Amino acid sequence: MTAVARERVFPAVRLAELADIAEILGQLDEFESERARAILADAEVLVTGWGSPFVGPAVLDATPHLRAVLHSAGSIKAYVAPELLDRGIAVSSMAAANAIPVAEYAVAMILLAGKRILPMAAGYRRDPKACDLEAAFPGLGNYGKRVGIVGASKIGRLVIELLRAYDLDVVVHDPYLSERDADALGVRAVELDELLATSDVVSVHAPSLPSTLNLIDARRIGLMRRDATLINTARGELVDQDALAARIQAGDLYAILDVTTPEVLPTRHPLLSSDRVLVTPHAAGSLGAELGRLAETVCEEVRRLARDEPIVHGVASEHLEITA
Amino acid sequence: MTAVARERVFPAVRLAELADIAEILGQLDEFESERARAILADAEVLVTGWGSPFVGPAVLDATPHLRAVLHSAGSIKAYVAPELLDRGIAVSSMAAANAIPVAEYAVAMILLAGKRILPMAAGYRRDPKACDLEAAFPGLGNYGKRVGIVGASKIGRLVIELLRAYDLDVVVHDPYLSERDADALGVRAVELDELLATSDVVSVHAPSLPSTLNLIDARRIGLMRRDATLINTARGELVDQDALAARIQAGDLYAILDVTTPEVLPTRHPLLSSDRVLVTPHAAGSLGAELGRLAETVCEEVRRLARDEPIVHGVASEHLEITA
Repeated sequence: MTAVARERVFPAVRLAELADIAEILGQLDEFESERARAILADAEVLVTGWGSPFVGPAVLDATPHLRAVLHSAGSIKAYVAPELLDRGIAVSSMAAANAIPVAEYAVAMILLAGKRILPMAAGYRRDPKACDLEAAFPGLGNYGKRVGIVGASKIGRLVIELLRAYDLDVVVHDPYLSERDADALGVRAVELDELLATSDVVSVHAPSLPSTLNLIDARRIGLMRRDATLINTARGELVDQDALAARIQAGDLYAILDVTTPEVLPTRHPLLSSDRVLVTPHAAGSLGAELGRLAETVCEEVRRLARDEPIVHGVASEHLEITA
Repeated sequence: MTAVARERVFPAVRLAELADIAEILGQLDEFESERARAILADAEVLVTGWGSPFVGPAVLDATPHLRAVLHSAGSIKAYVAPELLDRGIAVSSMAAANAIPVAEYAVAMILLAGKRILPMAAGYRRDPKACDLEAAFPGLGNYGKRVGIVGASKIGRLVIELLRAYDLDVVVHDPYLSERDADALGVRAVELDELLATSDVVSVHAPSLPSTLNLIDARRIGLMRRDATLINTARGELVDQDALAARIQAGDLYAILDVTTPEVLPTRHPLLSSDRVLVTPHAAGSLGAELGRLAETVCEEVRRLARDEPIVHGVASEHLEITA
């Protein structure tokens, strides 16, 4: 992986932990040099991460002893070729560990959205005065509100689990979720249009795939209830951002966006000038202290490999096609 | 209670629910008029709430059949005299129901504080650009962070319970909490100074009492770690606000405040001009939909009284002295 990613995910203390379990042959950010080829020739495990070069068939040919690729981040598709799985190499992704901070962000924002806390704070900051909050923010309050989860991904499922502690009516939409799985999650599965038309808060946790591009399109944005909140921690391309901005400017929708298109919005973008929107710069995923969780999860997998136990965060080839 | 409080907590649908269980003698906002005296003469239960006149010894003399006072809000001290308890009247407070939205606010803010989400959003809004978040916000990330809960009140305990779902190191300070109770809550009890000096996020849930006035004084504000966050959903008087504002202006502390002194801050107050602070206008308690939870809890207590069962949200006289 890149030197920056390596220093952040595996600082000295984590590298030392890894060195207690395995022999560290070297740190690479490419697979082409003579030094890299020498390391690959002996490697049994590759630990990849943000900015890693792609592990494809050519790398496989250079790693005759390879048993596993452990990816120290969430989205893995861009880093590992499906051929590895076909050739019996275990591929493990830290998506479950990376799901945690994203789910935490979503749960926090769902609770604040029902209460209109962020627009309330923005208005108060501009003009602090005693005001009738219930008149100024019709429909506020979390009790019994409907929360629609779009996508029963790792993150979506974790959000559903965490929301069980609250008096909310949680529904989910996912084309791959069976009714039985929804029952097991303790929520009702609904069609996407129904979810959008009936939820007070909609939180998007679908993967970015050709089939999910513009999933929440202008028609579906139009279905959302007056004063509902759209939360997007997935990918900007899933949402018709212009249609969203238009309803926000019309004053009848709220949004909390960790992802936008483009990823960095231009100064004075309409989404940055309304009290009804909070935008964060793709910050919900693992950052800072949370990178420690990724490194620890990698170390746990290496420990299992060292003891010839099965890895627990393995990626199956059919999943590579529908996950982020 | 006041007509406004009554209409919001007991709209027609909730009044109808109450009328199914009990005979509603009338709706009062004073205890002095001839009509009020006639109603009191027959009343077995008084349902009080925001803006109710004080239920003291004189009201007791006017209510020979009184069995219970059910207070449809949280803080009860200003509404009911301790003499009622001495005379065998059951007094019930909806503090447990009112604790829920406050705890939800605190949990959401604790999760966002560890990640610096709100200051990050404020900075991005002013100047959206790609930036190295870990360099701009040292110490961000929730994993393993210490959260200090000041006050094992109903709200404080609920926050502790809800935080169990996250990878956080939660400590608590409460002069009335035994070590055994702390163990039962699954957290470590520490002295207040230690809590302030070691926590990444401090959330205040102590009651407002003469003994807690200025509890987090200038010296204790000075103990807080660089870039820690102080969350206050309790009462403004518990915190030395000038000392807090000074550290925020110095750029080494964050705050999330639902309560301030005065309750409505003057325009251009320093706490309203920093990206490091979010202020909401005393909105964490029950509002809007959440008032329905208070009314439902009152109805449940009336149902118990009608069946001669004990109430479950009773207030004991020793508690009246140390609770809000």
